[in-house]
Amino acid sequence: MALIGASDRSAWSHLVHAGLTAGGFTGSVHYVNPRSPTAHGQPTVASLTHIGEPVDLAYVMVPQQGVLAVLDEAADAGIANAVVLTAGFAEAGSEGQSAQHELEELAAQRGLAVVGPNTLGFINVPRRVSLFPGAHMWPLVPGQVALASQSGALGGTLMGYFAAEHVGLSLLVSTGNEAVVTLSDVVDYLVDDEATDVIALFIEAIRKPADLLRVAERALAVGKPIVALKVGRSEISARTAAAHTGALVGDDRIVDAIFRQSGIIRVDSLEQLLTTAAVLAQTGPLRGRRLGVASISGGACDIIADRAQDEGIDLPPFTDATLAALGAVMPDYGTAHNPLDVTGAAVRDPKLFGQALTAIGNDSVVDVLLCQMAITVEQEPGVATESLASIATALRQAPVPAIFCPATGEGLAPEQRELATRLGIPFVGGGIDLVLSGLGKAMWWSDRYRQRAYTPKSTHVAAPVGAAVPDEGRGSWSEYRARRLLEANDVPIVPAILAQDAGEAAHAASRLGYPVALKVASPDLLHKSDIGGVRLDLRDESSVRAAFDDVIEAAQRVWPAPRIEGLLVSPMRSGGVELLTGVVRDPIWGHVLAVGLGGVWTEIFNDVTLRVLPVTAGDVEEMLGELRGAALLRGARGSAPADIGALVDVILRIAQLAHALAPDLESLEINPLRVDGSQIEALDALVTWKGAW
Amino acid sequence: MALIGASDRSAWSHLVHAGLTAGGFTGSVHYVNPRSPTAHGQPTVASLTHIGEPVDLAYVMVPQQGVLAVLDEAADAGIANAVVLTAGFAEAGSEGQSAQHELEELAAQRGLAVVGPNTLGFINVPRRVSLFPGAHMWPLVPGQVALASQSGALGGTLMGYFAAEHVGLSLLVSTGNEAVVTLSDVVDYLVDDEATDVIALFIEAIRKPADLLRVAERALAVGKPIVALKVGRSEISARTAAAHTGALVGDDRIVDAIFRQSGIIRVDSLEQLLTTAAVLAQTGPLRGRRLGVASISGGACDIIADRAQDEGIDLPPFTDATLAALGAVMPDYGTAHNPLDVTGAAVRDPKLFGQALTAIGNDSVVDVLLCQMAITVEQEPGVATESLASIATALRQAPVPAIFCPATGEGLAPEQRELATRLGIPFVGGGIDLVLSGLGKAMWWSDRYRQRAYTPKSTHVAAPVGAAVPDEGRGSWSEYRARRLLEANDVPIVPAILAQDAGEAAHAASRLGYPVALKVASPDLLHKSDIGGVRLDLRDESSVRAAFDDVIEAAQRVWPAPRIEGLLVSPMRSGGVELLTGVVRDPIWGHVLAVGLGGVWTEIFNDVTLRVLPVTAGDVEEMLGELRGAALLRGARGSAPADIGALVDVILRIAQLAHALAPDLESLEINPLRVDGSQIEALDALVTWKGAW
Repeated sequence: MALIGASDRSAWSHLVHAGLTAGGFTGSVHYVNPRSPTAHGQPTVASLTHIGEPVDLAYVMVPQQGVLAVLDEAADAGIANAVVLTAGFAEAGSEGQSAQHELEELAAQRGLAVVGPNTLGFINVPRRVSLFPGAHMWPLVPGQVALASQSGALGGTLMGYFAAEHVGLSLLVSTGNEAVVTLSDVVDYLVDDEATDVIALFIEAIRKPADLLRVAERALAVGKPIVALKVGRSEISARTAAAHTGALVGDDRIVDAIFRQSGIIRVDSLEQLLTTAAVLAQTGPLRGRRLGVASISGGACDIIADRAQDEGIDLPPFTDATLAALGAVMPDYGTAHNPLDVTGAAVRDPKLFGQALTAIGNDSVVDVLLCQMAITVEQEPGVATESLASIATALRQAPVPAIFCPATGEGLAPEQRELATRLGIPFVGGGIDLVLSGLGKAMWWSDRYRQRAYTPKSTHVAAPVGAAVPDEGRGSWSEYRARRLLEANDVPIVPAILAQDAGEAAHAASRLGYPVALKVASPDLLHKSDIGGVRLDLRDESSVRAAFDDVIEAAQRVWPAPRIEGLLVSPMRSGGVELLTGVVRDPIWGHVLAVGLGGVWTEIFNDVTLRVLPVTAGDVEEMLGELRGAALLRGARGSAPADIGALVDVILRIAQLAHALAPDLESLEINPLRVDGSQIEALDALVTWKGAW
Repeated sequence: MALIGASDRSAWSHLVHAGLTAGGFTGSVHYVNPRSPTAHGQPTVASLTHIGEPVDLAYVMVPQQGVLAVLDEAADAGIANAVVLTAGFAEAGSEGQSAQHELEELAAQRGLAVVGPNTLGFINVPRRVSLFPGAHMWPLVPGQVALASQSGALGGTLMGYFAAEHVGLSLLVSTGNEAVVTLSDVVDYLVDDEATDVIALFIEAIRKPADLLRVAERALAVGKPIVALKVGRSEISARTAAAHTGALVGDDRIVDAIFRQSGIIRVDSLEQLLTTAAVLAQTGPLRGRRLGVASISGGACDIIADRAQDEGIDLPPFTDATLAALGAVMPDYGTAHNPLDVTGAAVRDPKLFGQALTAIGNDSVVDVLLCQMAITVEQEPGVATESLASIATALRQAPVPAIFCPATGEGLAPEQRELATRLGIPFVGGGIDLVLSGLGKAMWWSDRYRQRAYTPKSTHVAAPVGAAVPDEGRGSWSEYRARRLLEANDVPIVPAILAQDAGEAAHAASRLGYPVALKVASPDLLHKSDIGGVRLDLRDESSVRAAFDDVIEAAQRVWPAPRIEGLLVSPMRSGGVELLTGVVRDPIWGHVLAVGLGGVWTEIFNDVTLRVLPVTAGDVEEMLGELRGAALLRGARGSAPADIGALVDVILRIAQLAHALAPDLESLEINPLRVDGSQIEALDALVTWKGAW
C-alpha cells in the first residue's frame, strides 16, 4: 500500500496514518513524499515508481493540482487501484468539474479503479485495512453489515454509532464524488462478499439509476437486504446536495417507487438505518409476520403492542401448549398473553425469563422471538447475570430467529457490550420504537424476498407489444389518434365514432345509444374542455345537432386555427370508479407509470403511486393496494367491487405499450380509466411524442 | 421517614434501602419490623406508634393483607403521607379491587395522601429523597424535567435513560394504581414546583379526564409544557392495560383530541418523550418556527433539511449581514446557506464553528439556533476541545434559545457528559431525527402557549344558550323537531315546510321553488332513506304529488307502525362542500365534537377531527385546518372558498347548543352541513336524548 502525500505537516495525513496503524494492518506501507525523507517516523520514497515491489493500492492526498499526475504515475507503476482523498473536483464549481472529467478519462484510459475524489476512503474490517482518516477514534467491531456512505463525515460518525450500538461491520466505504467507482459498484461487490450479509447505504444522489436497479435485483436474488437512507427529499436539501456534489436531484416520489420496486428498504433516519440493519443481521429473512414477545415490564408490553399494530406485525395469541408451559413457570398474578409481561417475579427467579422465552419460541404460531430486557452489569455475577445467561441460551436455542432489545435507545456502556458478547446475546439497540420499525421493515423485505424466490422476475417482465409502432408523426396526438393506438394494442376504450357533420353525429348517437358526449378531435386542442370543445350528457337528436354546431364554432374561434379532424361521439358512462393511469418520461429515471384515483382524489390527496418501467403484474397489484382510496376499488359506496385481476391486466397492457414505445414516447395518459366491476375502459387518452411538433 | 416492612429477608426492602442510602438522604429514617430487632444493620421499631417523633412519610412494603392496618396505624401516629409499594390491589382481580376500594375509603376518612398501591415510589432529586427500589443503579442528575410514570418498571428504565442522555430530573414518580393520588394530582403539584420547568408523563390510562384537563390548562397558563407518551392505542395493549391496572380504556382518537386541545404534547416513543422534554428544558417557549443551523457535515445538513420540512420548521435564508459575517470566517469552498455546512475547515480552525454560530444566532430571521456536532474527548485538550469551547460560548451567548445535538442517538460516554457539563454545552441527545421532531413539537406547544397568553381561555368558553331547553320529551327526535331546536338557537338550516298531504306538499314546493326534496318526518324513522322515506330532485308538481304518496306508502309498510308527523318539503341544494358536524357523548370523556368532510371523505378516509366540549373559536378553526381535505374548503375544484369565519361561527353555535344541553343530550348530529362560500346551512339533523324512549 502506498500513501501519496504522506507528510508530518498534514493533519489529514496524520489522521490517515493513525487510523491505518490502529487498525493493525500487517502488509507493507510505502510513504511517498518527494520533499521530506521521512513521514510519521518512516522513510519515504520520492515517487510511486521508486517503490520496487508491487503495490495493491495508492491512497492519494496530494493537492488537487497534482492528483492527475499521481494517478498517471500509479498506472505507470502497475498499480490498478486508487483512493483519492483530495477535494476540489465536481463538488467545487465548473473548474473542478472539468478536472473530474479529466480524472475519469485518465482512469478509463489506464484501467484504474478509483474511489473518490473527495472521499475519506474505506475500512475492510475483517482484513484490518483501515484507510479512513480518524479511524483510530472508533473501535473496529467485525460483523456482517457493510456500510457505504456518500458523505464521508457521516461515514465516520456512523462507524462510531455502529460500534456504540454493538453492530459489527464488514466494510465501511465513503464513495465521495464517484468519478469512477459508484455506490452501485460497491453494492455489486458486496453482493458477492462473503463477509457481508446486510448492506446499509447513506445516499445523497443516485448517479446511475439503472445500475442501482440492477445490483439491487442481484442483492435480492441472493437474499442480502439493502437498507438505505436517501436524503434530499426537501427543496432545501435538494439545493444543498446540488451545491455539495454537483449531482442532479430527481423526484423523491420516484425514488420511493424505485426502492419499493427493487426491494430496497427505505429508512427515514440514521437510527432506523442502524437498527433495521442490526435486526436483519440477527434474523436473516423472516418466514412471516407473527411476533412472540416477553418483556420485563407491562408498560413496555403496551408500547410493543401499539407499535406492532402500526407496523402491521401480528402478535398472535399463544397456543394452549404454550399457555400450559408458561403457567408452569409464571407466578399466579402473571397473565399469559402475547406480549408476555414476565412481571417482577423474574427479578427473584433467574430461570423464569429464559423458560418463558423457550416456551414462546417453540410455539408454532411464532415466526420471530423478541426479548425486551435491560443488560444489567453486576459488581459480581448474581441473579441478574444468571437471568441474562438463561435468556441468552433460550434465544440462541430458539427454532426461530430471536432478538434481544432494551426499552430505550440509550446505547450500551463498554461493560454492557462485553457482557452481551460473552453471553452471546442477540442484541439489537435503539429501543422498542426503532426495533419494531426495523422488524416491520425486515418483514416487508422478507415478503419481497420470498415472492422473488418463488417467481423469478424474468417471467414477469412486460414483453414488447408487436402491433404498436406508430407511423403518424410526432408531437401530441388528438384523442382520435390516441384511441386508435390503444385499440390496436387491446387496451379497452369507450366506443367512439368520428363525425364530420351534425347529421353524422346524430346518426352515430342513435347507433351508440343516448345519452352521448361530443368531443372535438384535434391534435392542436389538448385541453378540449377549456375551449368549449366538449359537450356531455346529450339526450336527444336535436341536442346533438345543436351541440355539434356549438363545438365547431367554439373550436374555430381558437387562434391560431387548429386542425380539426371531426367530432368524436361516445356513449355517456356513469357509476364506477375513475382512475388515472399514465406513463411519463422522467429525465433521470426514464419512463414512470403512475396509477391514481381520478378527480378530487388526485387533486386534493395526490393519491397517486408510481413505478419505473418495466413493471410486473405483481407491481401493478401492489400499486393498487397502496392507494389511500383503495377501499373504493373494493366496493365501498355501494358500488360493485372492481375485478382486480382484470384491472391489473389492463394497466399492465398500458405499461407494456408505453414500454415498447419508450424510445419515442414522452407520455401516454389514460384519464379517466373507468372501472365498474369487471367493466374497464379508457374514457379519454393523450399521447405525446418526444421532440418538436 | 419510616420504612414499614423493612427486612433483611426482602429483596424489595434491600433495593429500597440501597436507593435511599445512595441518594444521600440526610433526614432520619425509621425501620419498622415487629419480628426482627434490626434491618439493614439498623435497629427497628415494632410499629409506627413507637417512633416517638413526627414522621413525614410512611413507605409501606408489608404483605397485601397488612397494608390497611399499617395505614390506619400511620393515621393514628399523625402521619399524613404514605407510599404503598405492595401489589395485589386493583390490578389483581375482583378481590384486589375491593381491597383497593377499602384503601380509598380509609384514606378519605383519615385524610391520608397515598401514592400507590402497586407503585415503586418517587425520587425528589434536588432534595435527595430517593424512595424508589433500585435507584442506586442510576445516577441522580438534577435538572428541570419532572417525570411521572404509571409504569414503575419503565420509570426506573427512564431514569437511567435520562441520566445517560444528560437530561437532569427534578422529580421521578411512579403513580401505580392511583387509588388516591393520581397522575393529575402529580401534575397539579408540578405546576407549582419551582424545581420543574417541563413535565414528562408515561400514561397507560387516564382515570379522571376532567382533572387532567384542568391541570393541563394550569400548566399551559404558567408556560410549563407537558410531554406525554400515552400507550394503549392498539387493541392488544388496550386489553393488556385493562388486565394490568383494571382501568377503562377509551377511544384513542379522543385522547389525541384532548391532548391537542389542552396543549399537551403527545409523543410516540420513549425516545421522543426524552428528547422533546430535553429540547424544551433547554429552550423554553420559542418565539417562532425559524431555525438557524450549522453542522460539521453536509450529509447531516441534508437530513436536517428533510426533517425540518416534515416538521413544518422553517430554515430561512440568512440575511446579507449574516452572509457577510459568514463569508469573513468561512473558507472559499463553503457555501453559506441555511443549514450551514462549516466543512472540514472547522477541523483545522477551532474558532470557525463558534464564529459561524454567533453570526447565525444574531440573524434577525432566526428564532432558535441549532449546532450539529459531536462531543470529541481528546487525550489532552487540543483543537477539538478548543472548538467545542468556542461553540459552547457562542450558543450560550446567542440572543435566541440554542441547542447542540450529535448526528445520531448513540448517547454519551461518561467522559463526554463530563466535558459537556464543564463547557456548559446545551446538549440534547437522541440524534438529528429526534431533535427535529422535538423542535417541531416544542414549536407547536409554543404557538399554543402564546395564543393562550394573548387571549385568556375564559373569554372563549362557549356560553350556555338560553332559549334552547327542549320540553318535548326524550329518545330520538325526528328531523322536524330537531330543526326547530336548531332554528330556535340560530343554527342556519335549509328551509322546510311540513306537509300533511300531497296538495300541501305541492303548494310548499311552489313556494320554495323547484327542484325540491321530500322527507318523511317521524321520530321512529331515523334512517329515512333506507326505507324509501326520502325522494330527491323533484322537478314539478306531478312528481311531488306522486312522490308524496310513494313515501307515505313506504313509511306505512314499516313494522311496527311508525308515528308519522308529515313530510318535510325542502328546496334542493347543489354545489359547495358537505361537512358533518356532530356532538356525541363519550362514556369516558363526556361530549365530543366531531367535524369532518362528509360522504366519501368520512367513509373512506375517516377524515374527521375531534375535540371535547367546551371548545373555543380557535379550537374549531384548528379542527378545520386539520382535515386532510381542507383544500376543498379553500376553494379547490373550482368552487368558492368557504367563509371560514362564518363556518367557525356556525360550528361553534352547534357546539355551544350541545354543551348547554349536555346533561340530557346523547347526540346532536348535523349531517350534512353544506358550505358554499358564505352560504352555510344544515341539510339534515338528528337529536337523541339520554335514557329510554
